[in-house]
Amino acid sequence: MADDAPRLAIAMGDPAGISPELLAKLLGQPELMELAAVTVIGDRRVLALGEKAAGIALDIETVGALESAAAQPSRPVFVDLAHLDPATIPMAQATAEGGAFAMRNFGAALLAAKARRFDGIMFTPFNKLAFKRAGNPYPDEIRWAADLLGWNGACSEYNKLDDLWNARVTSHEPLRDVADLLTQERIVAAIEATTATLRRAGVARPRIAVAGFNPHAGEGGVFGREEIDVIAPAVETAAKQGEVVDGPFPADTVWLRARRGDYDAVLTMYHDQGQIALKLLGFERGVTILGGMPIPITTPAHGTAYDIQGKGAADPSATIEAFRTLVMLTGKQSAPPSPTT
Amino acid sequence: MADDAPRLAIAMGDPAGISPELLAKLLGQPELMELAAVTVIGDRRVLALGEKAAGIALDIETVGALESAAAQPSRPVFVDLAHLDPATIPMAQATAEGGAFAMRNFGAALLAAKARRFDGIMFTPFNKLAFKRAGNPYPDEIRWAADLLGWNGACSEYNKLDDLWNARVTSHEPLRDVADLLTQERIVAAIEATTATLRRAGVARPRIAVAGFNPHAGEGGVFGREEIDVIAPAVETAAKQGEVVDGPFPADTVWLRARRGDYDAVLTMYHDQGQIALKLLGFERGVTILGGMPIPITTPAHGTAYDIQGKGAADPSATIEAFRTLVMLTGKQSAPPSPTT
Repeated sequence: MADDAPRLAIAMGDPAGISPELLAKLLGQPELMELAAVTVIGDRRVLALGEKAAGIALDIETVGALESAAAQPSRPVFVDLAHLDPATIPMAQATAEGGAFAMRNFGAALLAAKARRFDGIMFTPFNKLAFKRAGNPYPDEIRWAADLLGWNGACSEYNKLDDLWNARVTSHEPLRDVADLLTQERIVAAIEATTATLRRAGVARPRIAVAGFNPHAGEGGVFGREEIDVIAPAVETAAKQGEVVDGPFPADTVWLRARRGDYDAVLTMYHDQGQIALKLLGFERGVTILGGMPIPITTPAHGTAYDIQGKGAADPSATIEAFRTLVMLTGKQSAPPSPTT
Repeated sequence: MADDAPRLAIAMGDPAGISPELLAKLLGQPELMELAAVTVIGDRRVLALGEKAAGIALDIETVGALESAAAQPSRPVFVDLAHLDPATIPMAQATAEGGAFAMRNFGAALLAAKARRFDGIMFTPFNKLAFKRAGNPYPDEIRWAADLLGWNGACSEYNKLDDLWNARVTSHEPLRDVADLLTQERIVAAIEATTATLRRAGVARPRIAVAGFNPHAGEGGVFGREEIDVIAPAVETAAKQGEVVDGPFPADTVWLRARRGDYDAVLTMYHDQGQIALKLLGFERGVTILGGMPIPITTPAHGTAYDIQGKGAADPSATIEAFRTLVMLTGKQSAPPSPTT
């Protein structure tokens, strides 16, 4: 099994929130560490803070450089870049130092993955404001990852809440531009990619509901024609190719259908069509997946939760689900079903 | 009190669903009928169907023409246009006949309201497909109402779920066009109208959260500039005028703020920003309000529910809430608080 086990990097996120504690709680679960060869990238002193908050003492092999790390299933390795003494920064705040710390960890994981050292990357929560203060030039993590991985192909963010997935045709784009970004080719490709991603994640026959774009899905062309001219033909093309796909459905009712279990995934045309729904459904329990690149990347959907930092109260279930989902997506091993499935 | 009581028209909706039953259940509540002088417009035989389904026998004065109706509080009058024998149409289906029936009732109520016979109109659920089959030329009820009332000013649809209101800057427009429809003037006017509407509905100091337009409310201009160029300045202008208003907030988190009670209303920039959230929050229990015209118009938010037609199982609470809200909005009388407030 050791040879087949996925080689995963975990990049430490923001040091001033709950990320260190979540990492300690994850590493402290031997049955999870059996599933992969895990290399953690960060500063050992920041992890020590997390151990203290979580009330866990980890016995993890620590090395000084990625090149020296030889993780095995059940034997994770910590790569201590020794680049942040947490005593020098305030906790529970977005700082440039905290942002730079998380950026360097993620960047190192991506570059090592590009050199084929890893089959997947997970990161604990980042803080956008800290990234901004640290001078992060990327508008979002997916463009950052694609850039460092040297990936020019299609890639997409997915969100997963329990058994329900959300895939997007467009994401971090001005809404003004979205109508012109919607093409049949792009929608068909998104349906195909969603099917492939869900299959890798263990859904044998993914059922996809496609959202419309306009109010009432255009009401037969009265409030916009994208459904008639672009989305419906794309759904038809994908269905002819064998995809299990329906739509376009009005965006305000497609989530009711999905919530009652009629579909495994909703493909939305733009960011907020999915995010409004998922946030109301409790997405802080969910997982964000960056898919379509040479390696999968996952992270818990919630943020750094500065307000409960250091108290040991952080719920690690989304982090655990992000880890399990990553194992599945590497295709190297079937993770046992998560508690929610 | 009789002179001050609001004069309300209730236009019977689709005959083949739960509308007749809901109306019977509403008219059967004496404490509600005390609140207004109610004139019902429809066909007495269709109401009889509703009485049968509801297990209620109504003793309601019936006249043959609107001109003969002299309703008083506690003494509603039924105007029997005798235009549909329900035995001649199939139940639980959208038919041209059913659509024409509901259209004629609503049209008669609007024309009488234009002639100042009524202070407000309520309608029981319509069926869009039946309207289409009957040749309805209007894209939505608000444009229809404005046309028949001869109203050229601003008007807007509101949605109310329990104590939470949703107001819209744009509604039934192609989403492609919305960015260009967002102007500071329009947003300020929508904030002012929302405050005025909620005040009339009994909220003394309405607190309004304004949604952004782009993902992450534009992330500081990275994913679109409408927040910076249009929405934020409009919020600032309205706040300077004394409105209690905050934003723009990202559309996917503004609903979490509102749900926990931080605001009385969310002003959304486009239709689905509000409808995705409200539908998930259980909007079938809510009320739709057409506001800004010379008279207010309300209707329960749910549809004709053909699947439970004729069984007596239809829940009248949204219809009752639509009636109470209409009484409040006429400004003629304070309705007692509804059970949910």
